[in-house]
Amino acid sequence: MADQVDIIVSEVGPRDGLQSVARIMPTAVKARWIAALAGAGLREIEVGSFVSSKRLPQMADTGEIVAASVRIPGLLVQALVPNRKGAERAIAAGTHKLTIPVSASRAHSAANVGMSPEDAIDHVREICRLRASLPARLGIEATVATAFGCTMEGPVAEDWVMRIARILAEAGVDSVGLADTTGYANPAQVKRMFTRLRREVGEFSGGAHFHNTRGQGLANVVAALDAGVTTFDSSQGGLGGCPYAPGATGNIVTEDLVFLLESMGLRTGIDIERLIAARALIAEGLPGEPLYGQVAEAGLPKGFVPASRRPAA
Amino acid sequence: MADQVDIIVSEVGPRDGLQSVARIMPTAVKARWIAALAGAGLREIEVGSFVSSKRLPQMADTGEIVAASVRIPGLLVQALVPNRKGAERAIAAGTHKLTIPVSASRAHSAANVGMSPEDAIDHVREICRLRASLPARLGIEATVATAFGCTMEGPVAEDWVMRIARILAEAGVDSVGLADTTGYANPAQVKRMFTRLRREVGEFSGGAHFHNTRGQGLANVVAALDAGVTTFDSSQGGLGGCPYAPGATGNIVTEDLVFLLESMGLRTGIDIERLIAARALIAEGLPGEPLYGQVAEAGLPKGFVPASRRPAA
Repeated sequence: MADQVDIIVSEVGPRDGLQSVARIMPTAVKARWIAALAGAGLREIEVGSFVSSKRLPQMADTGEIVAASVRIPGLLVQALVPNRKGAERAIAAGTHKLTIPVSASRAHSAANVGMSPEDAIDHVREICRLRASLPARLGIEATVATAFGCTMEGPVAEDWVMRIARILAEAGVDSVGLADTTGYANPAQVKRMFTRLRREVGEFSGGAHFHNTRGQGLANVVAALDAGVTTFDSSQGGLGGCPYAPGATGNIVTEDLVFLLESMGLRTGIDIERLIAARALIAEGLPGEPLYGQVAEAGLPKGFVPASRRPAA
Repeated sequence: MADQVDIIVSEVGPRDGLQSVARIMPTAVKARWIAALAGAGLREIEVGSFVSSKRLPQMADTGEIVAASVRIPGLLVQALVPNRKGAERAIAAGTHKLTIPVSASRAHSAANVGMSPEDAIDHVREICRLRASLPARLGIEATVATAFGCTMEGPVAEDWVMRIARILAEAGVDSVGLADTTGYANPAQVKRMFTRLRREVGEFSGGAHFHNTRGQGLANVVAALDAGVTTFDSSQGGLGGCPYAPGATGNIVTEDLVFLLESMGLRTGIDIERLIAARALIAEGLPGEPLYGQVAEAGLPKGFVPASRRPAA
């Protein structure tokens, strides 16, 4: 596969996917799944979150999973942390990069992390100060959640999202991403918001996190690519769909995203066949769990050559 | 709803959808389904095809369906015809507009219509001459099928697709569309091909017909919008998915397409709630048939105002 990549596909299935499934994937299978994803060429994986294991027992083994994952050569091991305490646990476990969500919606912020957006921003500031005291390099990405709308509040003001993004960039994070936590985003809005994000925070402009709840996920990716976004979160098998709404998948599906990018001529460094094969680990760890993704069902087109396997121009 | 529309959503479920389902929808239900779609604001519906009823018994009632549909006020009634004989039957039934496929892939052309692309083009020429002899106005759209690749031949040469498009425009059709019959297209290719189509045939440049086989359908719509395409085929419920491949849907889903467009600020004149309600007619006519579409499952976002209901700027 190509050593150079044009787009970073950042797998969040072991975190965003598994936290949305009521059952718990056994730790050993989770570790093998992450290894299989890395083996397929994924270079960034959000392997879990350091949150209350009472609230999310699916994430109780994140420390162990981080410890196993950092032994995989070339893999950037990420974990979500909602606050300073989570960051301390993540750092102790050896996590390479922290993802910190700050929800633009007050109602969602209260429900999700039990604090206001302003208090969440204070935690980001504290974590950035904490980093300054560390001997080793630690990555920090902040993500503005519910940036495109909220199931509780409805529309979210774009100016407010941009103000949060600016404050986060000033707080000292490496990058600020935008997340469509609720599957509300449309391509026109995505292009406008990411274009504006780049204008507001420049080189700190981060990745896109889309959900496919209304089937618009890959359409939003096309719009984000147009706005210059180069990092996309996705989840193998679209893991995390609500079992009571068969069509309402969670994150965009990694397999379909990689096919989209590679067919457009954008190198991801990911081997689609090996990626599809890794779905077997989800089936092993969560038997019967519905998996999404149409490339895995339909197969690759006849004569298809992914960008990562084309000779350099 | 808005009288003005920015984008024409052209429903092909009663033709492309139903022809892919082995069971036959009763004629009376089909007529009520088409009326419900028109009632939701769809202005163009491909109600069937004039083909051999031995080969496609699902389409045997197309004459009756056309006769019922042309009584719906404001509806443009389309039917697919593969050859001159089909065109004569369609005209006799009172069809407003004919869609004639010409497959760029020789293997697909032989399998689909039993003739070469050149012979299919000759039929288009004959149908255009036939139109010249008619008293009433008849619309004719030709569509280059397998324009983005073929399951039998693999990649299809873009120059050949454009050559067919030019010949069809010169033959006297009203417009030439491009169809991704096989679900092979990617957004980069879609933007390039439709941009080129406009350059090659100018005002005769027609609509886009995408399948969602690999989940790329709406992503391709975003790219086609960028290239100036203003007419899109789609199928209610993504009808036509292969029952042996649960994720491999047929056409792009009308409900999700309308949501995409309306959320982007593009007026379709279609009422999404009434459109979703029309799914009940498919369930009535084809009980148990799997339906796709994520907006129907997930519902509309809180506070969502479709473009067609916004005050004029």
